[in-house]
Amino acid sequence: MKRKSLEAAPCPVARSLDVIGDWWSLLIVRDAFLGRRRFGEFQKSLGLSKNILTQRLRGLVDDGIMTQVPASDGSSYQEYALTPKGRDLHTVILALRQWGEDHCFDAEPCPTALVERATGKPVRRLTVQAEDGRPLGLGETMVVAPAG
Amino acid sequence: MKRKSLEAAPCPVARSLDVIGDWWSLLIVRDAFLGRRRFGEFQKSLGLSKNILTQRLRGLVDDGIMTQVPASDGSSYQEYALTPKGRDLHTVILALRQWGEDHCFDAEPCPTALVERATGKPVRRLTVQAEDGRPLGLGETMVVAPAG
Repeated sequence: MKRKSLEAAPCPVARSLDVIGDWWSLLIVRDAFLGRRRFGEFQKSLGLSKNILTQRLRGLVDDGIMTQVPASDGSSYQEYALTPKGRDLHTVILALRQWGEDHCFDAEPCPTALVERATGKPVRRLTVQAEDGRPLGLGETMVVAPAG
Repeated sequence: MKRKSLEAAPCPVARSLDVIGDWWSLLIVRDAFLGRRRFGEFQKSLGLSKNILTQRLRGLVDDGIMTQVPASDGSSYQEYALTPKGRDLHTVILALRQWGEDHCFDAEPCPTALVERATGKPVRRLTVQAEDGRPLGLGETMVVAPAG
C-alpha cells in the first residue's frame, strides 16, 4: 500500500502517525517496554518475518526511537534499546492499553494490568484534564493556533 | 500488505492496534474530534481516494467507533458521528499530539495547541502516574497478570 507522507503536516497527531503509525512498529516499542532487546526476542513475541522485522527495526533506529547497542551480557549479539524519544512513547502505549482494556475485552476480563512496580497498585487512569486538573469532555477542548 | 489479526491477543495494546492501528482510521477519528462529519469533509481534509475513505469509514462503523446519522441540517446527506467508544479515543489522540509536539517539530514550533475551550489554556500534560499522582518512570511500572 502506498503511503502518503505526513512528515510535513501541520498537525502533530499526523506527524506522530507518520513516524509510529505502523502497527508493527508500535508493537516492537511495546515489547521494548516489556524488556525485550534482541532480534530473536522480538521475532518470537511478534511472530513476524525476518524481513519485516528487520525493516521495522531499521525504521525505528532511523527515526531515533531505538538505538543499537552492544549486548548487555558481553556476547556478540546486537541489542535494541529505546532512546529518550522512544521512552516518551510510554504515554501513547498506556493510552492504547487503557482503551483496549475498556473496549476490546467484551467476553472476558483483560488478563494483564500496568502497575507500579514498588506497590503493585494499578497506575492512575489517563484522562484529558484542564490545567488545574478538572476533567474535560470532548466538547470542552479545541485546537487553536497559539497567539503570536 | 497482509495483516495478521491480533483481535484475540491477550495484550490490550495489541487489541487496540488491531482495531485502530491504521494510520487513516486514526486520522479520520482526529478529524471527527475537530468537528468534521461528512464524507466530503474527510476527503478534503485527508486527501485520500474515495475507495480508501469508504473502506476505512465502513471499518470504523463496523468496529463501533463511528455511527452513521442523518445530516444535522436536515438535508439528505449522511453524516458520521463518534460513538462513546470512539470518543474514548480522545486520550489516545492527545497522547499522540503531545509526542508529536515534543518530537516532530525540530525546525519550527508546533503551529497548534489543544486548549480548554472556556479558558483558552492548554490542557494538562498526560503523564504516567501512580495511583496517588506521583510521576512514574518507565522502570517504575510493570505489566502483571492480576491476582485471581
